[in-house]
Amino acid sequence: MSLLVVGSVAFDSVETPFGKRDRMLGGSASHFSISAGFFTDVRVVAVVGGDFGEEERKVFAAHQIDTTDLEVVPDGKTFRWFGRYDYDLNVAHTLDTHLNVFAGFQPKLSQASKDARLVFLGNIQPDLQRGVREQVANAELVALDTMNLWIETTRESLQKTIEVVDLLVVNDAEARQLADEPNLIKAARKILSWGPKTLIVKRGEYGAAMFTRDGYFAIPAYPLESVFDPTGAGDTFAGGLMGYLSSQEKLDEAALRRAMIFGSVMASFNVEEFGTERVQRLTHEEINQRFTDFKQFTHFENIPFDRAVRAAQ
Amino acid sequence: MSLLVVGSVAFDSVETPFGKRDRMLGGSASHFSISAGFFTDVRVVAVVGGDFGEEERKVFAAHQIDTTDLEVVPDGKTFRWFGRYDYDLNVAHTLDTHLNVFAGFQPKLSQASKDARLVFLGNIQPDLQRGVREQVANAELVALDTMNLWIETTRESLQKTIEVVDLLVVNDAEARQLADEPNLIKAARKILSWGPKTLIVKRGEYGAAMFTRDGYFAIPAYPLESVFDPTGAGDTFAGGLMGYLSSQEKLDEAALRRAMIFGSVMASFNVEEFGTERVQRLTHEEINQRFTDFKQFTHFENIPFDRAVRAAQ
Repeated sequence: MSLLVVGSVAFDSVETPFGKRDRMLGGSASHFSISAGFFTDVRVVAVVGGDFGEEERKVFAAHQIDTTDLEVVPDGKTFRWFGRYDYDLNVAHTLDTHLNVFAGFQPKLSQASKDARLVFLGNIQPDLQRGVREQVANAELVALDTMNLWIETTRESLQKTIEVVDLLVVNDAEARQLADEPNLIKAARKILSWGPKTLIVKRGEYGAAMFTRDGYFAIPAYPLESVFDPTGAGDTFAGGLMGYLSSQEKLDEAALRRAMIFGSVMASFNVEEFGTERVQRLTHEEINQRFTDFKQFTHFENIPFDRAVRAAQ
Repeated sequence: MSLLVVGSVAFDSVETPFGKRDRMLGGSASHFSISAGFFTDVRVVAVVGGDFGEEERKVFAAHQIDTTDLEVVPDGKTFRWFGRYDYDLNVAHTLDTHLNVFAGFQPKLSQASKDARLVFLGNIQPDLQRGVREQVANAELVALDTMNLWIETTRESLQKTIEVVDLLVVNDAEARQLADEPNLIKAARKILSWGPKTLIVKRGEYGAAMFTRDGYFAIPAYPLESVFDPTGAGDTFAGGLMGYLSSQEKLDEAALRRAMIFGSVMASFNVEEFGTERVQRLTHEEINQRFTDFKQFTHFENIPFDRAVRAAQ
């Protein structure tokens, strides 16, 4: 019983107002699996080039991430992303993208991967995501991420893919664009009508919201005085979310709610340093402390207003 | 023991993509007091012209709002605001403003008003706000609203006023502008260092957050499928907040948290129809239903992740 992620493994070069890093381990599958590894056993399906070395393997190994299905193209190069953030850290400016071996990525699943209980289809071309989805017919929960590029260029295929997953995890601009509807609540209802039982919307510094057929749950973000590098925050959130779910026997609404908190906790650590640096050295005590903080930040007593009592005073 | 509000009473003419209304009862003191009237006894200090008639007085009377200190300038005209909203209902476009009698507003407080337990200084010129604050020396809690105009034109006076109040209620753009700091958490810390014990930040569709010296509380907005007219939402929020506090014996953090929920509930009703129309005919059952909904939307079980348990399974 394990969690499978299909996505990208990359080398990222990132500049922010606070510094820069060249050739850090990045990509959706990396951020996701390192985050999820704190909660469950994770298997990665991705592709890398011959330049993917011992140092990177050690990071996965240190988090007990199974890389059996990490395909290596010895004479190819690993996906590279070059990005910059200005003071508005909400907006990533892509300076350059070298798809390299990722351009020809065809996810190949071993039997163990096909038997995964939970599956996260990271942000790759929707046809590829659907191909993987068909190979994990017995998965208890399949989640999907996507991006504006696929909404704009492969909308039909993307919608077919959304129809066959259980959970969609996107940011709020993507949810509105996907549904072609500016009101998020209406957008959510439309997306759920296509098939998924659950929609989780990431809202950056404003937190996250979960929509189900007849349920709604919303949380603020963990309050941070400084955000250093937001790269991978969404995948780190998804990793905490899915990793926690994978540790739970029952995938009910109560578990999903706690999973969103763990996802937010993991994302809050991710943005505090470059790349996966902060998350790599996290402890369970630190994770649980922020989980408990979240309870403290959001709790209020359920005491309705009683006019009769007031009038009598 | 009552709640005093000092602010504007106006006639608003509003156009939205969904319709228009001419000469509705508006202004900060109107929205605030009608909302607060559901929870406590409210007194209004404001100024109107001879055109303020029986119909408007009836609205205040219907909510048991004390208008003894509502000054009438018989040969003057009531403040008028003309505004428009496009599909982005977050942005109000002012088409015209006739200050009329509001231009010479000098708040005059009766002894009963000076004895108010709680005071809300609505968005007026900061010197006037401070003048009122000095007259309510025994108030248990004085709250302040302001706007970008005063931050830009009377920053020094505004800061002196902020220094002598207990609670500041602003939106997030105002908080960042006031502190000249893009990070909201840092901005909040800076503002609290000036004197107020509490800062409440309104974030529109993203909810609201409360900062104290060593506390943080954040809530989402009530999820609405359609927003009709956001005029007065901020004052309606403040009315629910302060009105509920006024009904409580202890003004502690727990009461403030519940007060924020009631403020959000009242604001959620306000935006569903033009002006004060929806709030005017609210029932306590409707208010308490949304309060309970808020609990449902934000609750999760406080169960930290237990790696040992997982590993043992």
